[in-house]
Amino acid sequence: MQLKPIGIIHTPFKKPSGTPIQPSYAEGAPGTVEVNGDYTAGLQDVNGFDRIWLLYWFDRICDTKLTVVPYKDDRAHGLFATRAPCRPNPIGLSSVKLLGIEGNILRVEDVDMLDGSPLLDIKPYVPDFDVYTDCRSGWLDYSNDMKKADDRFRAIQ
Amino acid sequence: MQLKPIGIIHTPFKKPSGTPIQPSYAEGAPGTVEVNGDYTAGLQDVNGFDRIWLLYWFDRICDTKLTVVPYKDDRAHGLFATRAPCRPNPIGLSSVKLLGIEGNILRVEDVDMLDGSPLLDIKPYVPDFDVYTDCRSGWLDYSNDMKKADDRFRAIQ
Repeated sequence: MQLKPIGIIHTPFKKPSGTPIQPSYAEGAPGTVEVNGDYTAGLQDVNGFDRIWLLYWFDRICDTKLTVVPYKDDRAHGLFATRAPCRPNPIGLSSVKLLGIEGNILRVEDVDMLDGSPLLDIKPYVPDFDVYTDCRSGWLDYSNDMKKADDRFRAIQ
Repeated sequence: MQLKPIGIIHTPFKKPSGTPIQPSYAEGAPGTVEVNGDYTAGLQDVNGFDRIWLLYWFDRICDTKLTVVPYKDDRAHGLFATRAPCRPNPIGLSSVKLLGIEGNILRVEDVDMLDGSPLLDIKPYVPDFDVYTDCRSGWLDYSNDMKKADDRFRAIQ
């Protein structure tokens, strides 16, 4: 199972520290998604969606950890109970607001990934498929109000 | 960027035809997620979440197509405006209901993937991160009421 980058995501965030933890905390942070020209035909009709899922590669994080102290708690939890980046398959998932498309460039808001993250996929955000309200969120129902990352998952450089 | 399976998803669906198109159409179809024993420690506290995202590999689909006629329309759309499986990086994304965990086995409902799909990641579904209501859904706002797949994206065998 081999992945290939299909583009690159440009954001204001050069390092983990200070990067929004999630799009819902990003306060409209602006970005652009540059899709490789080979894939431009696949963008037809994407502009009808208010939001899109971006799947991307966490390319600057530490090795896999199965137990982590996530940003939003000071206690450890199993990795799969968190959205921490240090995963066996380090795939990021973020729902961003789509402002417009010109050719192979998408203007977006609410970005929470590092500048230069390799893009793996774009999927439309569809409330009929993706919205489940009133779900228990485990430890996150009692979490702190941290909204920006620090360097705890940064790769040693 | 190399992926490794971290488990396998067991579902009632052996072939695309008749498989639910999305978890929201799956009418509670039951499945189990068998996580490789090496990763059991990562499941701590996952049981506090009502739903989880499963990321998995579409391992039985046709080659990439940039324009597709999706299940829910009879007109063609750009691939990235659809959730069709024939993607450059064929990663599936489904929010399933979590019923319980015993050791490395998760009992789930609302499965919409083929039996035996390789598991890539589990992330908690968090309404604060994942719920955006009142989003336009492009062509899907005017789509048909198809809820089960057919064989249009099946690999030739």
